This record gives sequence, C-alpha cells and structure tokens, in this order.
Amino acid sequence: MNTMTVPCTPPSFSFSKRTDALKASEIREILKITEREEVISFAGGLPAPELFPVEELKQVSLQVLEESGQKALQYSTTEGYEPLRRQIAQRMQQKFHTSFQGEDILITSGSQQALDLLGKVFLDEDDVVLCESPTYLAALSAFRAYCPRFIEVPTDEEGMVPEALERILQSTTCIKFAYVIPDFQNPTGKTWSPSRRQAFMNLANQYRLPVIEDNPYGELRFENEIPPSLQPLDQHGLVISLGTFSKIFCPGMRIGWIAAHPEIRNKCVLLKQGVDLCTSLKTQMEISRFIDQYDFEARIQKIVSVYRQRRNAMLQALDDFLPADVSFTRPEGGLFLWLQLPESIKAMELLQDCLAQNVAFVPGDSFFPNGGVTNTLRLNYSNTPEEQIREGVRRLAQAIKQRLHSVPLD
Amino acid sequence: MNTMTVPCTPPSFSFSKRTDALKASEIREILKITEREEVISFAGGLPAPELFPVEELKQVSLQVLEESGQKALQYSTTEGYEPLRRQIAQRMQQKFHTSFQGEDILITSGSQQALDLLGKVFLDEDDVVLCESPTYLAALSAFRAYCPRFIEVPTDEEGMVPEALERILQSTTCIKFAYVIPDFQNPTGKTWSPSRRQAFMNLANQYRLPVIEDNPYGELRFENEIPPSLQPLDQHGLVISLGTFSKIFCPGMRIGWIAAHPEIRNKCVLLKQGVDLCTSLKTQMEISRFIDQYDFEARIQKIVSVYRQRRNAMLQALDDFLPADVSFTRPEGGLFLWLQLPESIKAMELLQDCLAQNVAFVPGDSFFPNGGVTNTLRLNYSNTPEEQIREGVRRLAQAIKQRLHSVPLD
Repeated sequence: MNTMTVPCTPPSFSFSKRTDALKASEIREILKITEREEVISFAGGLPAPELFPVEELKQVSLQVLEESGQKALQYSTTEGYEPLRRQIAQRMQQKFHTSFQGEDILITSGSQQALDLLGKVFLDEDDVVLCESPTYLAALSAFRAYCPRFIEVPTDEEGMVPEALERILQSTTCIKFAYVIPDFQNPTGKTWSPSRRQAFMNLANQYRLPVIEDNPYGELRFENEIPPSLQPLDQHGLVISLGTFSKIFCPGMRIGWIAAHPEIRNKCVLLKQGVDLCTSLKTQMEISRFIDQYDFEARIQKIVSVYRQRRNAMLQALDDFLPADVSFTRPEGGLFLWLQLPESIKAMELLQDCLAQNVAFVPGDSFFPNGGVTNTLRLNYSNTPEEQIREGVRRLAQAIKQRLHSVPLD
Repeated sequence: MNTMTVPCTPPSFSFSKRTDALKASEIREILKITEREEVISFAGGLPAPELFPVEELKQVSLQVLEESGQKALQYSTTEGYEPLRRQIAQRMQQKFHTSFQGEDILITSGSQQALDLLGKVFLDEDDVVLCESPTYLAALSAFRAYCPRFIEVPTDEEGMVPEALERILQSTTCIKFAYVIPDFQNPTGKTWSPSRRQAFMNLANQYRLPVIEDNPYGELRFENEIPPSLQPLDQHGLVISLGTFSKIFCPGMRIGWIAAHPEIRNKCVLLKQGVDLCTSLKTQMEISRFIDQYDFEARIQKIVSVYRQRRNAMLQALDDFLPADVSFTRPEGGLFLWLQLPESIKAMELLQDCLAQNVAFVPGDSFFPNGGVTNTLRLNYSNTPEEQIREGVRRLAQAIKQRLHSVPLD
C-alpha cells in the first residue's frame, strides 16, 4: 500500500449539518452545576421522587416476571402492549373526553420519543413548525434535528392569539404542524381558555393544520375542572395527542404515548422500528398491572396535593419578596411558573448572581426558538420542599433587587 | 370567519420525504404471519426465551427498588449509569481487546438506537454509507431515515474485499462511514478473517474512514477463539463499536451501547437528549447488579451451548436434505445462516410454498440495500428446538426440490 496516497483529511469528523449546528442544552449544563446538595434548584422539571410508588412497583415487578417473564423479556411489537394501550385510551376518554381507542395509541420511550418520531414523520429541511412563544425547550431540540424553521405565534394569557395565527396560516407555505401545550404549559404554566381552544381548532380545521397537543401535566390540576383535549373539537383527524407516565407515575419507566389518526400513527410505527424496534414490554406490563391493581387516581391526587402546597408556597413567597415591577404567572396546575423581569435585567446574568447564592432557575431565553427575549425565567416548584422554596425565592428576590437598585447583598 | 377562504387541501397528510418513501419491513410483516403456533419459524432473530434469567432478575429488581428506588425511577443522565458503563468497557477490553474506557460508553435503548443516533450524527441527504453485501436490514432502516445512498462493497467468504473497497474509496465523495458486522454477520453468519480485518483497517486508517463495527453476537462463539475488535487496529479514533445485552442477556431490557471517540460520542449524547432524554436508570441498575452478583460468563456459556446444538442440528439437516445445487454458510457462532439457491428460484416465491407448509424464513432480497438479488434466504436457529429444526429444514428442502424439479409435494 502506497502511503503517499493518503489524502489530506481534516483532523475532525465530517458530521451532518444538523450535528454541526448542535449546541449543548443550557438547562442540562445548569442541571449539572445544581446537583450540589446545598443548591436550592428551581431549574429542573423533576417530579418529587418521594411520591414514586416504589413499594407497589416491587409487587408488580415480581408478578410480571413470575407470570410472564419469558414474554416480558423478549422482543415485542413496536406498537406496544395491547392492554396498556387500551388502558391509556380509556383514561384519556375519561379525563380529556377524547375518542381515541386502544389501537390509536403507540407506546413510546417517554413523550420525548414521540416528539422525535413526529419531527421525523413530518419535517423536511426548511418546513415550518408553528409554536407558542415561548415553548417547551426539549420539543425544539427534537424538531431541530430535522432542520425546520420555527414561527412563534403571538401568545397571551389565554393561549395563542387566533388573529395572529390566521395571518400566519394565510401567508405561510410549508407549515407542517402546530406544536402546542394547552394545559399548564412548559415553561409558562399557562392554560388556554375554552374560547381560545375553540378558536384555535376552528382555524386548524379550516386550514387542515395538523396539531401536536402535548399534555404531560393535564391531570396535575390543583383547582377547577380538567378541560377537554383539543381532539373533541377536531373534524379531520388533525389532533395528535401526546401523553406520558413520567409526571403522574415516574419518569424512570420511560413510557409515553402518541394518540393519532391511523395514517400518522402507522408512519410513526414504521419509523420507530428503525429507531429502537420496541419499548420494553416488561416495563409496559408493570405499569398496566399497576393501573389494574392499585388506585391510580388516589396516587395522582396525592401528587396534586403536594404540588399544590408547593405552588402555594412559591406564589406566597413571590408575593412577599418580589419587587412590584416583576410579574409572574399563577398556574392552576403542573410543575412550573414564569417570571417576567424588567427589561434592564438579563436572566442569564441574574442566574450567575443566584448561583453564587446557591439558587438555580432556567433563564427563559432558550424557550424562544428564534431568540430575542432575555428578561424571563422559569421556576419549578415540584421538586423542592416548601421551606426551601420560600428561602430560595427570598434569595432570588434579593438578587433581582440588587440588580434593580445596585443594593449590595447582605 | 369566512369559510369561503378554506383552501383546497389534499385528503391526506403532508409528510416528510423520508416518510413518503417508507415501506413496511418485510421481516416484520412475515413475523406477524408466523406467530401461529404451528409454524416452524426460522424467520425472526429472537433469542431463546427459556434461557432468560427470570429468577435472577426478580432478585435484582427488588434490590434496586429497595436500595435506590427513588433514584432509579427518576430522570437520569443521558450518558447512562456510570457503574454499568465501566462494566461494559471492562468486558469489551477482556473479550475484544478494545481500549475504550467507561467514559467512552454511551448507553442506548438497544443497539438499534445506536444505529439511529449515528445515522443522525453523520448523514445528510445523498451522503454515502459503505456496507457489506448483504447487510443487516434494520441498520438500513435506521440509516434510510436520513436519506443516504448505500454502496455495497463486494464481500466474499472472508469479509469485505479490500481491493474493491479501495477502488470505491478512491473514486467516491461524501462517504460518511462504513457499517460492518465482522463477527457472525447478520444475515450471513460469516466472520471476517484476521488478514481481512487488518487490510480493512489499513484502508480505514489511510482514508480516515469512520467505521461502525456492530457486534451483537461476538460472544456467542461455538468454537475457536474470539477475534479482537477492529478497534485495536484503529490509529485515528475511527472505530465506533456497538454492543447490546439483547443477545447475551435479554432483549426486553432494551439496553445497548455505543463506544466511540469523544467527539462522536458527545454529539450522540446531545442528539439522544432530543430523542428520548435518557434510558431507564432502573433497567441499567438491574443489569449492573446482575453482572456484579451472578456469573455472567456461565450464563453466556449456557446460551452458547444451546445455540451450538441448534446450529449443529440445522447444519446436519441441511447436509441431509438439501439438493447439491444449494449452498449455505457454516457459522462458528451467532444466530443465523444463509442459503444461496439456484438462480431459477425466487426466495419470495419459495416463502409462499413454505408458509403453506408452516415453515418460515426471511428472503434475502431486502438485505441488499440496492436490491437485485432474489435467490438467497436467511435462517435463524436460536429460537427453535432441534427436532423442529430438522423437521422445518426437511419441509424447506422439499419445497426447494419441488421448485427445482417440479416434483409434487407428498
């Protein structure tokens, strides 16, 4: 072999365009810092682990291995475990008034995989995704791998503004879908009003706009009734509903789902074969048994009651400590609330101040797919006990006041 | 709202180009037919479920939930559980003489996810993937989602033909990687010779060709020594080694891994965040404990001993029943062997004859990414007891003879 023919290659690898554009997630990097014991972290989106059903899972694990071990540990169908799919469809019907049946459900590895599959199914380079402004960071990560453009639909306290959405629908080509979180949105904690849901779906029906309705938090409602899903308002099979056991059971199971029109779901199934063949049958059987044998609703009410107290503690502390020129949302459920700072304060700089005081949050910047907003931040309350919430908010408020008035920290 | 403005939209959804091109996998559709009790199926790639460590998994499941339940059920790092990554690196060092360390390992949801992530990391539309001819069908599915071209490198009994590979490397632009299975290849059961491994890696080093070495079966060797991985021959961090617990433990855990250069691995980690955030920590902890507490090597030897008997039974039956103008491989390990039929016989048509006799296999057609070969087929022997193997091969041979000589079936 003639070594003179060795071509002059660059020192690093030749990746795809999507990979070259890839940046480490800010949230992930911050989470690494905040793993220190002494940090009061409002940064993550972690459910409270003390509420995980550890004892019950011991029982169902044993039962599944005892009764169906060989089957549970083998390869299984891509679509998922039929009894679990039926249970999910029934729960969605009862809670959210959807008409999806068991066969309309595809089990996914958390709802994050649902986002990846749907990006893969719909998006070519430069296609358009419509989303709320701001919207869920990890959905942006999933979709970005398929190189779309994001159009942020103006969004107010009640949800997407219909007039703004219609102008965009009238003037834009290659819109593939709208991605929305109508219940306790991540990051803002806002819930869409009934009239906005109707107006939104009128437009979706009129323009045949596929809609990804992401609903990981809908059952974690602290007051008032759970509103119906967008799906009952859908006249053309446009609504794709995503759900997950991560927030109402535990994230470590990695079980979520897509409920969708057969045409969409079948494409997702084919793509999932290439992506990971199937989701663990053992895990699916464990959750299915848990739903059969235990009082799932009582478990959810326990989570709701703990998170309600934490939300209350955070709102009380924000009311008590924050200066008047900072506004914030008052979520009726879910895991997050959202602060708007005076424009003079950059949330990224505030985070540095706060980390020095062992308090963490996520600056809102990266929830806006096209950037340009620097004075917002997201607070999580599900994973912090009330007394720490109050102390953390006190320090946060102090850091804000210092930036506002250049008052030195005590 | 003026309903006169409703645009005239097509009745079905507007999917991505990759999705429009998607077809249901032949193997998957056949597997559905072959789920009937009476079918002797050589079609799937299923490990023998009677060898799954059900009892041991009961113990480790309880221990993990007892000792670390809250942690095991929470979100976890994308990279994977550190002790398991170290165990995997150590096993690879011992078995395959690699120099990967724990931090070089990324845990994936089966090695199918590794293929998807690597496709995502490397491939833009029309980039070139080099592969053996034939090659693993589900790798093609994973890569096809990123719309590359496949160049099949001529492959003989010893592996890829180096002269042919070099001509392709000299004359082709936009080659992103070679995908190879040097040990007990799926679908052929062939193993690359030591001199071919060296010649292949000489070229890879010379042309700075990234190499995905897929090795799900390497430890399931029935005779002779396990050859080293390609990685010890790698001078530039080019070799990406994939492994999985699916064949040496059980597939239902959905745990595989990527071992790679940090530059590649870090990109995979970032993409995995968008794809599914993390793999179940509970499952990773269960496997890690199993490796610590039980004799993993003895388990593998048990699998080897059962599969060896089944491979022997299949070879004996093929020797006894097949006509002389059918050739087949004699694998030294793994799950599969490969038949070459006379050119007059179409494997797809033969399959119809065989299904009528309740025998199933996978026609080789779809293992050739660019098609054009119709007279090959893959047989799996890991999931069928010996007496059924003999009976199935007898029926297969009869169907072949009938097609060859138009002899009516008895």
